[in-house]
Amino acid sequence: MGLIVQKYGGTSMGSTERIAQVAKRVAKWVRAGHQVVVVPSAMSGETNRLLALAKELAPGKLTQDYFREQDMLAATGEQASSALLAIALQAEGLPAVSYAGWQVPIRTSNAYTKARIDSIDDARVRADLDAGKVVIITGFQGVDEGGNITTLGRGGSDTSAVAVAAALKADEALIFTDVDGVYTTDPRIVPEARRQNTISFEEMLEMASLGSKVLQIRSVEFAGKYKVPMRVLSSFTPWDIDINEEAKSGTLITFEEDEHMEKAVVSGIAFARDEAKISVLGVPDKPGIAYQILGAVADANVEVDVIIQNVSKDGKTDFSFTVNRGDYAKTIDLLKDKILPALGAADVIGDPKICKVSIVGIGMRSHVGVASKMFRVLSEEGINIMMISTSEIKTSVVIDEKYMELAVRALHRAFDLDQPVAA
Amino acid sequence: MGLIVQKYGGTSMGSTERIAQVAKRVAKWVRAGHQVVVVPSAMSGETNRLLALAKELAPGKLTQDYFREQDMLAATGEQASSALLAIALQAEGLPAVSYAGWQVPIRTSNAYTKARIDSIDDARVRADLDAGKVVIITGFQGVDEGGNITTLGRGGSDTSAVAVAAALKADEALIFTDVDGVYTTDPRIVPEARRQNTISFEEMLEMASLGSKVLQIRSVEFAGKYKVPMRVLSSFTPWDIDINEEAKSGTLITFEEDEHMEKAVVSGIAFARDEAKISVLGVPDKPGIAYQILGAVADANVEVDVIIQNVSKDGKTDFSFTVNRGDYAKTIDLLKDKILPALGAADVIGDPKICKVSIVGIGMRSHVGVASKMFRVLSEEGINIMMISTSEIKTSVVIDEKYMELAVRALHRAFDLDQPVAA
Repeated sequence: MGLIVQKYGGTSMGSTERIAQVAKRVAKWVRAGHQVVVVPSAMSGETNRLLALAKELAPGKLTQDYFREQDMLAATGEQASSALLAIALQAEGLPAVSYAGWQVPIRTSNAYTKARIDSIDDARVRADLDAGKVVIITGFQGVDEGGNITTLGRGGSDTSAVAVAAALKADEALIFTDVDGVYTTDPRIVPEARRQNTISFEEMLEMASLGSKVLQIRSVEFAGKYKVPMRVLSSFTPWDIDINEEAKSGTLITFEEDEHMEKAVVSGIAFARDEAKISVLGVPDKPGIAYQILGAVADANVEVDVIIQNVSKDGKTDFSFTVNRGDYAKTIDLLKDKILPALGAADVIGDPKICKVSIVGIGMRSHVGVASKMFRVLSEEGINIMMISTSEIKTSVVIDEKYMELAVRALHRAFDLDQPVAA
Repeated sequence: MGLIVQKYGGTSMGSTERIAQVAKRVAKWVRAGHQVVVVPSAMSGETNRLLALAKELAPGKLTQDYFREQDMLAATGEQASSALLAIALQAEGLPAVSYAGWQVPIRTSNAYTKARIDSIDDARVRADLDAGKVVIITGFQGVDEGGNITTLGRGGSDTSAVAVAAALKADEALIFTDVDGVYTTDPRIVPEARRQNTISFEEMLEMASLGSKVLQIRSVEFAGKYKVPMRVLSSFTPWDIDINEEAKSGTLITFEEDEHMEKAVVSGIAFARDEAKISVLGVPDKPGIAYQILGAVADANVEVDVIIQNVSKDGKTDFSFTVNRGDYAKTIDLLKDKILPALGAADVIGDPKICKVSIVGIGMRSHVGVASKMFRVLSEEGINIMMISTSEIKTSVVIDEKYMELAVRALHRAFDLDQPVAA
């Protein structure tokens, strides 16, 4: 008997048949005595359909005024799916009510298409729960101080669900999705990849930021900040699966350090394709260089990932970083046109066919030699490392894209991720 | 130079191409120096698509909770089309902003699916207009005191537009639609039917209530109550038609009695198919009979139109009324099961194949013999009149459905509606 927030993705909400199945699953939890708040995504394909209509009409220059309207438009997808789920629950004989973000309200910043949640008023929802209702809250959206609809960006429904769970101090946020949990790496690349029963919040954060697409990273940050127990599990099991079995399925994201003492040093291998590397060569080594280069890149709305500045030699240094491959040509042009002359640097070179592979594990904190083992394994496979970036619980390398699968498989095996974890 | 509210129907908003055309038309008005508020319907087909999804999931018993969700769902259609129109206007280089009903706010009663507008706050819209923006307001919807989304019922966007025009004291509400004005009768039945340059509010009200589908009746009531000049015109002219020509096109609904002094006595012929007649025979003629019969019918959510109670004979009377044909069988059953025994009436009989034909004209007030001329014309055509109902500016007859076209054509000719109006 607890207060459970359940999030269902677009595929789970993809048709009236699927919505009816979601309603039956929610009803099972309600009948077992739980209070349930559901946060659905839009029906699959709907958000893309709406954004395509906007694109057909869009002006040449996409202003804030445009993004305001795009949010107004995109938000209708979740409003519709939420109302449909409420109707399906009523057909199951359960009192149910749906709220758009502004009705709760879920207050956000006014950064259209990528707003951040500031606060959630729990009064209305709590009153409904206490009155025995199932409450459905639109994912992905909120309302700013000026009463404008905002959206949280792609995958934002995960964040909505966790934020709602935090506001309600829910016992658990169940993220129902089309995979059955978080794996040691992508099973499409390593068939031996294992589903993890638990993963620490910090590991999940690294996995998400390093390209694992199971959860939106901001939802994990939110879960971490508010200590919301969060479980990723499958919505493709039969809806009438035993509730006790379902409650323990998938992967639990935990905040208890102790649970992990016995865990493997490395808990997962993450990777990101579609990266590109750019180097500015022969840069005069003086203060402000990094800002001059990266400031210009940021102003062009290009996100920079790994950043490396080599040791200076003869007062000159090389400065390298990675960007999304889609931003490669634009960034090279920008640097050649604006930065190279201003800095008096020698040249700008790049490689658009690289990838990033990372090992992640909270155990790395207390175990030395993990990174060097990674480098040895890659060396034994003849894979050249172009860039290295580390944090407390992960080590990332940038390598030639063609070696990505090889690297992931070799590391997965070398760190015994295909073996069950010792008790 | 004025403040103009423009309403565009679903067909006018039916695709991104059409929305782009609407934007160009609006831009023309703005560039001519007008302040413009646009009230669009949902893209054609969208409301039906959404309601069909709801129907697939609907519970057996449609409660208020269900209708709340249906409104939540249906309202997304106008929110999406409004945002798309704002985007199309921005692409035309005009600052534009869209608001859902709750953002204005348009306050309504909480009668889901058929809410009535209580008030409209004009502050936000006026500030935007003064800042040089085009304001788009979703048709068809509002928000109740509890912060729930409500809809105004089918055709409600006409009402939204007129209500917005009233709140803003607009100079004119232009109802762009797929016909080019109000005709003396349906041109599909009488090819000689003429478009009327002006029609009085009261005539329009009768035409709308008698089955003419050009305008939703509540929008006409609203226009009458707040004296909003309202014009019905075509959205299928080229968008770049001369603005002065466009401003005088279609049919203006006026409130000035004087203008009509020279007009024809009868200004239009309205008709309604799909009616059915029901008679309760041999009812004891005592007080409360009408209430006993019609109260039961109203409780079953059946709308009653023409009502006739014959002169009493031997303490018994016959009581007849018409209902929508879809409600015929249900009403007959109801009367036989519940009312016949309770009243001690002799029998319930009916005819599901009747129609109503009406002549409408503000000139009927001051001209005698109009009704009798109608009866003579029908008699000459050999058409039997089953029921008669009159008001100050119209006379309606119920006749066999098969004579409908014949009656409409004969009356149109007899009242010279195919002739230009004398100056």
